Amino acid sequence: MSVERILDARLRDRVVSAEAAAALIQPGETVAMSGFTGSGYPKAVPLALAKRIEQVHADGLPFQIKLLTGASTAPELDGALAKADGIAMRMPFQSDPDARTRINEGKLDYIDIHLSHVAQHVWFGFYGEIDTAVIEVSAIREDGSLVPSTSVGNNKTWLDLAKKVIIEVNDWQPAGVDGMHDIYYGTALPPHRKPIPLVSANDRIGDTSLHCDPDKIVAVVRTHGPDRNSPFSPIDATSEMIAAHLIDFLKHEVKQGRLPANLLPLQSGVGNIPNAVLAGLAKSGFRDLAAFTEVIQDGMLDLLKSGVLSYASCTGFALSPEANEEFKRNIDFYRQRIIMRTQEISNHPELVRRLGCIGMNGMIEVDIYGNVNSTHVMGSRIMNGIGGSGDFARNGFLSTFLSPSTAKNGTISAIVPMASHVDHTEHDVSIIVTEQGLADLRGLTPRKRARVLIDNCAHPDFRDQLNDYFDRASRDSYGKHTPHLLPEALSWHQRWLDTGSMKG
Amino acid sequence: MSVERILDARLRDRVVSAEAAAALIQPGETVAMSGFTGSGYPKAVPLALAKRIEQVHADGLPFQIKLLTGASTAPELDGALAKADGIAMRMPFQSDPDARTRINEGKLDYIDIHLSHVAQHVWFGFYGEIDTAVIEVSAIREDGSLVPSTSVGNNKTWLDLAKKVIIEVNDWQPAGVDGMHDIYYGTALPPHRKPIPLVSANDRIGDTSLHCDPDKIVAVVRTHGPDRNSPFSPIDATSEMIAAHLIDFLKHEVKQGRLPANLLPLQSGVGNIPNAVLAGLAKSGFRDLAAFTEVIQDGMLDLLKSGVLSYASCTGFALSPEANEEFKRNIDFYRQRIIMRTQEISNHPELVRRLGCIGMNGMIEVDIYGNVNSTHVMGSRIMNGIGGSGDFARNGFLSTFLSPSTAKNGTISAIVPMASHVDHTEHDVSIIVTEQGLADLRGLTPRKRARVLIDNCAHPDFRDQLNDYFDRASRDSYGKHTPHLLPEALSWHQRWLDTGSMKG
Repeated sequence: MSVERILDARLRDRVVSAEAAAALIQPGETVAMSGFTGSGYPKAVPLALAKRIEQVHADGLPFQIKLLTGASTAPELDGALAKADGIAMRMPFQSDPDARTRINEGKLDYIDIHLSHVAQHVWFGFYGEIDTAVIEVSAIREDGSLVPSTSVGNNKTWLDLAKKVIIEVNDWQPAGVDGMHDIYYGTALPPHRKPIPLVSANDRIGDTSLHCDPDKIVAVVRTHGPDRNSPFSPIDATSEMIAAHLIDFLKHEVKQGRLPANLLPLQSGVGNIPNAVLAGLAKSGFRDLAAFTEVIQDGMLDLLKSGVLSYASCTGFALSPEANEEFKRNIDFYRQRIIMRTQEISNHPELVRRLGCIGMNGMIEVDIYGNVNSTHVMGSRIMNGIGGSGDFARNGFLSTFLSPSTAKNGTISAIVPMASHVDHTEHDVSIIVTEQGLADLRGLTPRKRARVLIDNCAHPDFRDQLNDYFDRASRDSYGKHTPHLLPEALSWHQRWLDTGSMKG
Repeated sequence: MSVERILDARLRDRVVSAEAAAALIQPGETVAMSGFTGSGYPKAVPLALAKRIEQVHADGLPFQIKLLTGASTAPELDGALAKADGIAMRMPFQSDPDARTRINEGKLDYIDIHLSHVAQHVWFGFYGEIDTAVIEVSAIREDGSLVPSTSVGNNKTWLDLAKKVIIEVNDWQPAGVDGMHDIYYGTALPPHRKPIPLVSANDRIGDTSLHCDPDKIVAVVRTHGPDRNSPFSPIDATSEMIAAHLIDFLKHEVKQGRLPANLLPLQSGVGNIPNAVLAGLAKSGFRDLAAFTEVIQDGMLDLLKSGVLSYASCTGFALSPEANEEFKRNIDFYRQRIIMRTQEISNHPELVRRLGCIGMNGMIEVDIYGNVNSTHVMGSRIMNGIGGSGDFARNGFLSTFLSPSTAKNGTISAIVPMASHVDHTEHDVSIIVTEQGLADLRGLTPRKRARVLIDNCAHPDFRDQLNDYFDRASRDSYGKHTPHLLPEALSWHQRWLDTGSMKG
């Protein structure tokens, strides 16, 4: 270690190995860890804990924990603990293949909740006590305060509530992140809550570090390891078309006077399509944009660099290895333009509504009446979770959902008669975009939504089939407000399960 | 008229008949009217307009309007205009039998949106321009400012945005409501929004009257007529049992330290079951309660009178004729304890979350995984609309949904394998109550929710059938996170349509 990152001597005295720290976690504990979208998660203790759990299991004894985080993490955390069969309950989000398999086999309890609800539901006592917090930081200051690393997530809540705390100090994280964070300490339980004094995405309302009673810190572990940093796929033609439709629409809204010339703060889900939208914005002619979002991914760094985006507020990162290098290289530049907040603030309904965010999220499917499924394949198999999409879809200025019109080599239509699971109801969905086009559902009845969704967004391979369903439902349905033929409404999904294609 | 209610001489000069006022509304206009849950709606102009529309139709000419309100109104408004086939589009809520029939025949376009979204979506320009506002008030002050009557709803927005305004001054409404209202004039469009400075349900943050440019007021009509004032049914045994389960639960939460002794501000939907809950609270031993809700109904007046409820914030009333008499008789008492707000404030996500409201709403059905249908019978026929239930379910401290476990003489189960329409997703539902018992879904996976919902809430007549579905789905479903058998998931609803019973 070139430069000492642990400046508080009391805490330097508590440095132990990851194994020694993991040994402090007991079977049955509720363990709250750092980590949001593969950034800022602890790198060593979860692996050591997984190893210990495997040893205990080998001895024929039980050992599982309840695991809470900010959002998704990485193979070294969710993956290792799931493989070790060490997780009894997981909350609030995951995207790990091993964890997902166990969840869908019915072997791992997963609770999928709005990211803006996590901290408050734990404070409310809905999840019992937090036994241990395991939090990655980039440094410990002389006064013992903790400089977060590349995500904040629920770390403030975990440190406040945990009975004992294990800190990982990761010197792979750039020291220059110090000053990038804004930890709001004004939250409270009702009836003692006050207005949150944030009126612009770049307002600072908190401290640059996390506070923790040093008496609770039972172990400090030195680590040196990268975040997940998965590469993004190169932008494909489908994503480019989706991005182009959305950007055309935003320009149209500006022209109509419904949006300011520099739009309103952008929220962007994570993935290849949102990345394509960000790339599209780079060439769009828009200037002075702002982001109030959960995660900063490659495209957003590019927008900051080119000046198209003036500043961005987030709670975590999802960068490719190349973008991470760029981030580290120019961290002084980015520190002036990026503010990292707790996820109760980054996703807070109060702030999302006040700022009037433009939400841009992916989806699995949407039905012809505008109900969006973000989480379940064929109604029963969970993919990842709702994440923060509901926080922005419900409370923002505009809720847009983006997806290719088909999946799995064209066998699945993203536009279906009835969504097999609903995460965003018809009341919360304003814009749907596929590579085929954009459906503006604002101010439309369910039947009018069906017409524009089928005409503008459905893949031609499925359009006749959708029209056929809608026409017959409009004729024969019990009610004609939201026409449905119940024996057929989910038959496309069953057909895919039976035949490998939704095509009739 | 015994005492002059129009104290501004300029506006007194604009008094005309309802017919003359209605003649100012042209075919194709977007007309925004006052009215929320049968209170404070215009009594004369809509009837005169309906008559005029019928005459125009008799001449073979078209005449329809787009109609916006606060929420539901009454036969003299929704009913008369629907019967006259005078409504092309209706937003955001209705409960009128004639309107509902036309909507479900596919003859009337109805857009069902969150009540907290209405004003802002109109300000955002999503519904075009407002041509005419028709607003009931209880009086016009000397300075021309308007004293609202028994609802506020979206009246501030309608007056601000309408090109021309028709005022009805209803001297049936008690003069003593003057001082009861709190009209917040601090709203703005993003990016200019500021925190709303309300931290307690009884804070006053606005003016006691509505403002309107007098030049826009094209007509003033004197009226003398009661609000809808439907009687409530006597409290039956089923409602009493539902209320008792909920109140036991609230006491348990206080004992566990998760709720203060005087709870958190209550929101209560309208109807016989919420009224039973309020009656139950009267005898519960709770004291110093507060309400931050949309509508004050009979039970809440009783609670205020007995001192169990210290104060109540609302945007409208739904009183029986007897309760209305009590309200008028003791209006000085109630004016000190009731604050009437605009519905964007009464339902504001920022405030519902800050205050930590306890939401109590009815439902049509809930599925075994906790997805609630509030709006559609058998997936296609709309009843009323989502109203404000989503504003409280998503953002409050607790979201509770209440219903008898069966409907239609026991032929319909309120607990079903899959909801035929979803208005409140699994992410937004914490407590379900039927006369059978209470299911606490907090911190449970979908499969655990199914177990507790079937065991605690389902009617014994349907319990075996539900267990059978859940067991087979848990065995055979594609994914085991939210087990479903898609060909059967909606078969209960279809069976009811085919045979008149969900029983298998």
